[in-house]
Amino acid sequence: MIAKTPEPPYYAVIFTSIRTERDPEAYYAASDRMVELAQGQPGFLGVESAREGLGITVSYWSSLEAIAAWKRHADHVVIQAEGRRGWYAAFKTRIAKVERAYGFDWSGEN
Amino acid sequence: MIAKTPEPPYYAVIFTSIRTERDPEAYYAASDRMVELAQGQPGFLGVESAREGLGITVSYWSSLEAIAAWKRHADHVVIQAEGRRGWYAAFKTRIAKVERAYGFDWSGEN
Repeated sequence: MIAKTPEPPYYAVIFTSIRTERDPEAYYAASDRMVELAQGQPGFLGVESAREGLGITVSYWSSLEAIAAWKRHADHVVIQAEGRRGWYAAFKTRIAKVERAYGFDWSGEN
Repeated sequence: MIAKTPEPPYYAVIFTSIRTERDPEAYYAASDRMVELAQGQPGFLGVESAREGLGITVSYWSSLEAIAAWKRHADHVVIQAEGRRGWYAAFKTRIAKVERAYGFDWSGEN
């Protein structure tokens, strides 16, 4: 659930969105498919996601080049257009370089 | 809901957590209080938060110094200890420099 990322530096794409009511089944199917597809991309390191009114998905990548390649991926481009056309009332994408990370996990894995 | 942040560069603190079942009322009260307190700190730019099993809170700051000052804030230190003692089963904090941002808002505000 919490992504097992390597030691920094690496990159994060923070995607924050507010959905419309339009076609939730198609949205969730597309969303699941995008996560699956992202996981197979070069440089993908992990993803964390939660929605509670506001949706936040943070994906982690080894480089800006890996992020750019994922942004240009053909299936992803189709879904981006769909998102702009009607699934999102608003969204913001922020690309950030992770410089430091710390945490804990009672199971001892973090 | 989506934070109205300025043009990059600025900093993001990505705080991802998995809660225990312990004392949810006290947790939510403390969580609300921390957001309120953060909003009054120098260099605070905005916050976005969602929980759906996994909790993700992203706060935005003008500088690493502002983040360090907030981490050391007395009331925040007390709550951090409380979090480690029992509210969180696991958490991860990532500090990242936002280099690029884009988005849209149908209301025309983004």
